[in-house]
Amino acid sequence: MSVIREQALHAKEASYVLSQIGISEKNHALLNIAEKLIENSDYILAENEKDIAKAEENGVRTAMIDRLCLTKERIIGMAEGVRQVVALQDPVGEVISMTERPNGLIIGKKRVPLGLIGIIYEARPNVTVDAVCLTLKTGNATLLRGGKEALFSNLALTKVMKEAIVEAGLPESSVELIEDTDRETAKEMMKLNGIVDVLIPRGGAGLIKTVVENATVPVIETGTGNCHTYVDDFADFNMALAILVNAKTQRPSVCNACESLLVSQKIAEEFLPMAKKALEEKGVEIRGCEKTREIISVKAATKEDFYTEYNDYIISVKVVSGIEEAISHINTHNTKHSECIVTSNYENSQKFLKSVDAAAVYVNASTRFTDGFEFGFGAEIGISTQKLHARGPMGLEALTTVKYIIYGNGQIRN
Amino acid sequence: MSVIREQALHAKEASYVLSQIGISEKNHALLNIAEKLIENSDYILAENEKDIAKAEENGVRTAMIDRLCLTKERIIGMAEGVRQVVALQDPVGEVISMTERPNGLIIGKKRVPLGLIGIIYEARPNVTVDAVCLTLKTGNATLLRGGKEALFSNLALTKVMKEAIVEAGLPESSVELIEDTDRETAKEMMKLNGIVDVLIPRGGAGLIKTVVENATVPVIETGTGNCHTYVDDFADFNMALAILVNAKTQRPSVCNACESLLVSQKIAEEFLPMAKKALEEKGVEIRGCEKTREIISVKAATKEDFYTEYNDYIISVKVVSGIEEAISHINTHNTKHSECIVTSNYENSQKFLKSVDAAAVYVNASTRFTDGFEFGFGAEIGISTQKLHARGPMGLEALTTVKYIIYGNGQIRN
Repeated sequence: MSVIREQALHAKEASYVLSQIGISEKNHALLNIAEKLIENSDYILAENEKDIAKAEENGVRTAMIDRLCLTKERIIGMAEGVRQVVALQDPVGEVISMTERPNGLIIGKKRVPLGLIGIIYEARPNVTVDAVCLTLKTGNATLLRGGKEALFSNLALTKVMKEAIVEAGLPESSVELIEDTDRETAKEMMKLNGIVDVLIPRGGAGLIKTVVENATVPVIETGTGNCHTYVDDFADFNMALAILVNAKTQRPSVCNACESLLVSQKIAEEFLPMAKKALEEKGVEIRGCEKTREIISVKAATKEDFYTEYNDYIISVKVVSGIEEAISHINTHNTKHSECIVTSNYENSQKFLKSVDAAAVYVNASTRFTDGFEFGFGAEIGISTQKLHARGPMGLEALTTVKYIIYGNGQIRN
Repeated sequence: MSVIREQALHAKEASYVLSQIGISEKNHALLNIAEKLIENSDYILAENEKDIAKAEENGVRTAMIDRLCLTKERIIGMAEGVRQVVALQDPVGEVISMTERPNGLIIGKKRVPLGLIGIIYEARPNVTVDAVCLTLKTGNATLLRGGKEALFSNLALTKVMKEAIVEAGLPESSVELIEDTDRETAKEMMKLNGIVDVLIPRGGAGLIKTVVENATVPVIETGTGNCHTYVDDFADFNMALAILVNAKTQRPSVCNACESLLVSQKIAEEFLPMAKKALEEKGVEIRGCEKTREIISVKAATKEDFYTEYNDYIISVKVVSGIEEAISHINTHNTKHSECIVTSNYENSQKFLKSVDAAAVYVNASTRFTDGFEFGFGAEIGISTQKLHARGPMGLEALTTVKYIIYGNGQIRN
């Protein structure tokens, strides 16, 4: 048996224990993790230092090193995050419904943990702590497979968390980190059917594509966002500009940032020059369709541009004939993440909400709000862009499933 | 572009139209389907005859020919089934929750259709009608890929349904049947990411395994059931025998039938001879573990037997040390479908309900009740044995997803 399969089986065993324990024990373990992270911060920082040194040696990009780098403050922030999870309500155990059938069977639908959750992610040590705490809170075990650039940090964080978990009386294998960061081990993890109950990839489009194409265990697809802002005939231009600039530039690297602007042709001549000025002031490169370029002088957009999630200070712009074309353009080009209409027309707002196929559809607000915290869930394990199980920001409930519990008194079927 | 991709894209287009229409239009189309099935029954039966003739020529098993065969009565039954779907409540459009955030954003969570649902199934023409009606009722389009043995029947049924749908004013491509029943076309269908929103395989273990291993679109795994009946120390033996015989023999070919009997050692000497008599009277072959064979004279069970879904008049029997071993044996051998304890002990009933990992866990009732109709859902598209999205019998709600609709008045993120 391979090391990974063995680790996964241990974690699966642990998941059965975790599914039985109450919220006080789970919270106790979480508080212990928060404490141990602070206590062991020197050790964690020293291990993180090894990752940083290696990354610098290998000429890794500054942005990536920044995400990789831990500091005393960041560890304190992690511990604070864990304590916030403690404060959240545990969804496990709720009986959602219970009905008596004509034959006397009493059928209850109960919320239970998923079991063993696999997380595949990139070189972000904060995900290691984040993912473990959310899965533990919901009574699940975690099988982690992080980016190779963060291996020393992940090993240190996992070691500290395991100690805290064991001290709290829970199984050590509640968390297992795959140490071999070879591509083949990731593929093996993706095929642990019957052991891993769900796999959640967290990272860029490339990682998510690899998981979707190779996994045979159930996957929750997260994260890629080709989000649009459509400025309607009846838009308040100041509101439209504020929303557009916010959605594009407040944090361009994230999945809920705007990547494409659609403008109704009726207002294009008036609105586009204003949009150009506002976006260029923020350093945004504009790539326009032909009609756009008849109005403002910008680079030409290719077909490919309208499918692209830039995650950068770039935006594609298209003039559309009106709301119908806007909706059909969005439904054929988007990644089902977040979409916005700016309008003061009631019918158009309703039509957009009803017809656009996406996890979150906005009227008159920035797409940047698609986020578990902004939605009031108190936590977020990722943003689902598929339609099964969970859609949009995933809070604790997305880490649970249901089971039917049935009370009989000898019923048999005719 | 391949024929399949083209069909899928047309069906996807249709799904956007279907997602917008109200329940009266959907019900009108369904009633029209019921009527047209009856009206065209001679044509359907003639086409079905071609499938039967070909199957007989190819020496197909009698059981399979029976499933394939349509009669006037069966068509009337199909039409009756469609009318029952009309009577069900439409889950689409419900706003499950709506909350106002501190910044004034109003966030609603609304139930919407999944979009385009792919169904891969075997030579059962009734699935063709069944699947289309449930997906249409929930505002989804359907891409069908049935077994090659039923191709003439499926073409006829689809033609009739399409006519009924068009007459009701809905898009013709609301239903598309893949006519090329080559293996490669099925594989192509399994990889239509971005077009097919979910794929539901309906059929035997082999089909489901192929889909799970090859699909890159989201899949709902259905159907395989290695279900156990555990007879506890404190069982009422008459009740245990009735439940056991019912779960094993009332319809052995289905997924919720019992495949394995676990008996607590304290009562094994008394219970096993009674079980042997009751099962053998129904023609069931018993394969026992060593301890079983010390008590009753039966064939030896191999390790493999305890993982096997016989779907036949065969049962594996194991003597366990008590409830703990029963639970751990079930959790390592079952397919997460349906499990039963027979006991009159309160603590053991609760422990079993809590610790067994399955879609449906029973106290003192036959596992044969795991079924959408028996659970009161009024319909069933299959029984999910995975944990994402839907677990256990899937009614109409399993064919929907949610989207967040957000009402703002210019909110931007800080």
